[in-house]
This record gives sequence, structure tokens and C-alpha cells, in this order.
Amino acid sequence: MILAVTPNPALDLTYLVDAVRPHGEHRVREVRAAAGGKGVNVARVLAQLGTAVTCAGPVGGATGDELRELLGAISGISQSWTSIAGVTRRTVTVVDPGGATGFNEPGPAITSAEFQALHQGVATLLDEAEPRLEVVTLSGSLPPGIGAADVAELVRLVLERDRTVVVDTSGPALLAAARAGATVLTPNAAEAIEATGAATPLEAATALVRAGARIVVCSLGADGMLALEHSPDDRSPRPGGSTGAGDSWPGATPLRAWRAHLPEPLSGNPTGAGDSLVAVLAQRLLAGCADLPSALVRAVAVSASAVTRPVAGEVDLELAAQLETTVQIEEMRCP
Amino acid sequence: MILAVTPNPALDLTYLVDAVRPHGEHRVREVRAAAGGKGVNVARVLAQLGTAVTCAGPVGGATGDELRELLGAISGISQSWTSIAGVTRRTVTVVDPGGATGFNEPGPAITSAEFQALHQGVATLLDEAEPRLEVVTLSGSLPPGIGAADVAELVRLVLERDRTVVVDTSGPALLAAARAGATVLTPNAAEAIEATGAATPLEAATALVRAGARIVVCSLGADGMLALEHSPDDRSPRPGGSTGAGDSWPGATPLRAWRAHLPEPLSGNPTGAGDSLVAVLAQRLLAGCADLPSALVRAVAVSASAVTRPVAGEVDLELAAQLETTVQIEEMRCP
Repeated sequence: MILAVTPNPALDLTYLVDAVRPHGEHRVREVRAAAGGKGVNVARVLAQLGTAVTCAGPVGGATGDELRELLGAISGISQSWTSIAGVTRRTVTVVDPGGATGFNEPGPAITSAEFQALHQGVATLLDEAEPRLEVVTLSGSLPPGIGAADVAELVRLVLERDRTVVVDTSGPALLAAARAGATVLTPNAAEAIEATGAATPLEAATALVRAGARIVVCSLGADGMLALEHSPDDRSPRPGGSTGAGDSWPGATPLRAWRAHLPEPLSGNPTGAGDSLVAVLAQRLLAGCADLPSALVRAVAVSASAVTRPVAGEVDLELAAQLETTVQIEEMRCP
Repeated sequence: MILAVTPNPALDLTYLVDAVRPHGEHRVREVRAAAGGKGVNVARVLAQLGTAVTCAGPVGGATGDELRELLGAISGISQSWTSIAGVTRRTVTVVDPGGATGFNEPGPAITSAEFQALHQGVATLLDEAEPRLEVVTLSGSLPPGIGAADVAELVRLVLERDRTVVVDTSGPALLAAARAGATVLTPNAAEAIEATGAATPLEAATALVRAGARIVVCSLGADGMLALEHSPDDRSPRPGGSTGAGDSWPGATPLRAWRAHLPEPLSGNPTGAGDSLVAVLAQRLLAGCADLPSALVRAVAVSASAVTRPVAGEVDLELAAQLETTVQIEEMRCP
């Protein structure tokens, strides 16, 4: 089973309006409420892919209750939240024919005791949950009170127990997750470049692998996705002291990279594409599937199908199956 | 005591952002949550004015629970909501230095049985509440399932019990409230003109009084407020069969009108100004204060102080006291 950790979950509201006008009044034609935050979206995609998942993270207040209720209605998702004194944030996405306008509330501050409770909760789930939790995803922004060192601590917690961990975050936490030896990192190109100071996405992905990550899959937006695989022979000792699980996913050569893309990019709402990528990679890790190029092709197709859905955390499996046959993949020269 | 009825209450969220950009992502700097809907805002202004008030209306769902909790923290406000199966709507007001951008969710549909429960609840409160409820306010938009005839029914329910009722609504409900003999109507100029088809605010107010309302106070925006008083001698029989209470607030002559305004209009957020007007008029009716021109001067001052507050339902009593000495009032020729 998969454990989806969301440090900063949200109650996601989507409003359909005729046209967004600054300093105007808008009648909302339709309201959709969904449990959100990137890790929750990963869980919702996994549920659609038919893979059972447990959600963890800090949740509180009336909005937190609403999130639990909305998620409780989705079969295939279990919940194991850590209750906090703060109030779960909302996001409001206003959709008009021209696109999406987003308003993101700040997350509630997490106390040190609350983070320790979350940490202990994840440890207990990994040690005791039945069926065993084989893969952990850790996705999204960090609320006040959870820092890069805490992300590294969670990564090590997972690796010490010989499980795999996919981390989708940015900034100092991205680099910290790489140094802690995360199995997979999934930054987008801008995030990878910003965290490493590299000049290109490929150089940035290489820097993250050199820092300790095993695999980096980097979204290039309309240009598809880049995947860089850390070879088992090329692995330096990790700060966490563990080489992590997932060693059954070999890199055939010391360092290999691929780029996969659709013949034509699809237009739509890219918000949930990264979460679909994480879901596909986590599902492949769970299945012990070692073939990174085929995972990349599948990820490009499922993520593209998410772009056609107005709400993050939804995919179109029929469309994904059609797209998968059209995805183009090429090996790249590594720096 | 005053009963503030809100047919379509809301959870009001105010977001402070740097600048609203259509199709951009916005980090919300500050979130304020308040119990809202026009009748609830009237209650919040009354609480600030030191007058005890009970809130009634249909409330449901997690947002309804949040509304009850937020309102429960305000001293001077009692709650007597009718629980409904639907979910109380939210409003999101995004404030940047250029002004306010509003997104208003549609209200939940009210079933016929739920409206009857609300109607019965108001009747019971009027018959049994201690201290006695002398004044009822009925404010704001109507959710699906509550129509103009229902508003008229509520107005008659109050008048039959010899209490007074201030109605702040628009469209067919405004005309229906006039015909049912509402004690006071408080449309803004555009609403009065739209409901009556008259050419000017004064003609529209006159039409509403001729239809059966006793007093009409009409906001003219930056031009202040217009008040038209129905003379007791000029009252035609009302559809409800009652002349209503509040006859202690006499019009000195058959038909008199005044306009009151500040020397210079204040700039700010006009959202709560109408609710402050209703609160001041309800407080005057409760006190048995018969002097419409002095009520109008007070209403202009308190409403103007509300404009300086970023959140609807808040007034600045010190500023209101200062402004009250500067308000200019003139009698108008009636058509």
C-alpha cells in the first residue's frame, strides 16, 4: 500500500464564473469542493488508478473536518491525519473561459510537538499498517513550522525502514530531500534550477542525483518530462546511512537520462499534472517495476490527461491509455 | 429586542492580496473569516451599537457550523437558526490596494418544509421570546426556494403581531414587501428604480410608499440617503389587513421626504453600508423614536463609518459620532 503524506493539506474550492474582473462582483455559477493539497491529490489519482492509499499530514478546524468528510466519500482512500490546533487552509480557484485564477490561503503554523506527533504517526504506520506500506509520497509546500530539515528527517525515517519515498517539493526542502537520499524527486524545471543553481533542467537533475537522489523526474511543461536515473554503481554513501529500498529498479548504465513528450501538448489546467506524475511513479515503485523509460511514458500520458480535467487530482484513464501510444521518448546525453 | 432574519446567510471570507491579476496565482497575505449575509451583518452592527439581537434564518453544513461558531464568539448576539439539509454558502472578497473583488457562491436550495420550519420558528420567537422581540429585520438576497410571496408572508406574520419590520431586499420581493405593508424598506437607488420602473429615486420611493410601505430610506451612494415617510392620514388599506405597528413614528404631514449627506463622501468598502442603515433604523424603531430626519442623519453617519472598515458588519462608533455633527439634511419636494 502507499502512504501519501501532505504537510500542508487544503480544502480546495473551484468556482466557475463568466469572467474574472478585478474589483468587480462575481456570481459563482458552480462550486466544487474537494480535499486538496498536493499529497491529497496524489492519493485521489492513486484511487482512480485502483491503488489503495492512506493519507497522513496535519489537519485541523472546520475546514479540516470538511476535508476529512470529502475524502471519506472516496473509496480506496484511508485517512490517518494528525490533529492540530490550527485551521486547515483553503484554496480558491476561479475558472473562467480564459483560464484559472488562484487564491491560496497560508497554511496553519505547525508546532514542534505537532510535527513530532506527525513523525511518530508515520513511523507507526510504516511499522504496523496492514497491508504493509511500501511506498511513501511526500508532496507539496511546507506550512510554517515544518522546514527542510524536517523533510529530510521524514525521508530518512522511510529509508531506514527499507521503503521507498517520492518527494515532490521545492526550495531548500528539495535539496535536503536529495541529500537525505530520496528514492525519487519530481521537481518541475524551474524548481530544479532554483534549488541547484544549475543552468538547464538536465544539469539541475544531474546535480540532484549527485547530491544523493536515486531518480529525478523533472516536468518541462509543454516539452514533456525529463528522467534521470542514478546508477547503483555510481551511488555515493547517503547522509541517512541507508541506500534505501527500490534497488530492484536498476539503472542499466551508470547515469542515463530520457525525455518523453506528446507529439502535441494538450491545453487545460496544469495544476494537477505533477500530482499525477507522483502517483504513477509511486504505483510503479509499489509494483517493483524497474523500467524507468516505460514509467516515464506512462507518467507523461496520465499527467497530460490530468491537464484536460478542470479540477486537480482527477485524471482521464481512457484518454491516458490513448495518449500513451503516442508518447515519444528519446535518450539524452548526460552532462 | 431585535430579531435579524437572514434568508441567505454566508460564511464571509476576506483575503488580502498584493494585486488581483486575472489568470494569475495569488498568495493570500491574510485571511479573515466572519459570519455574514446582510441580516447577520445587521446583527453584528447592532451588537456594536449595544443592542441585543437574535439571528434567524436557514443554516446548514460545515460552513453553517463555522458561521455559528464565529457568531457565538460575539457578545450580544443570540442564535436561533433553522437547520437545513443544504450547505450555507461562502462569499470570498479579495482586497488589494485598488479595491475589493467579490466572488459570491449561490445559496443552498430551501425546501418548502424548511421554509415552513423557518416561518414557524419566527412566529414562536415573536410569541414567546423574553425579552419581547419588538423589531424584525429581514435582509439580503433570497436563496432558491424562498420567493417574493414568502417574504410578504414573513412581513405579514410580524405585522399581525403588532411588531415592526425593516426589509432590505430587491426585485419582486421588494415590491411584495411594500404591498404587505412593511414598516421600513431600505433599497438602494438602483434597486428602487428597478423594482418600480420609476425614473428617479424619489419617484421610486414614492411608488413604494404608495404600494403600502410606511417609510422608505433609499441609499444614493456618494450622494447620501433619501428618506420618504408615509403619513398615517395617507395610508390605504394593506393587503395584509393590518396597518402594522410603529404608528408611534408619525409623519408630521401627509408625505414628506428628506435627503441627508456628508459634506464630502468617504472612500472605502461600501459593502456594509446598507446593513448599518438597517441596524440604525431598527434601533430607532426599538427605542420608539419617532423622528425620521434625526434617524436619517444618524444612519448617514454610521453607514459612512462602515465604509471606512474593510469588513462588512463593522462600524467605527467614534468616527460616526464625529461625522454626525457634519451631516447636512434638506427637505425635498415630494412628487
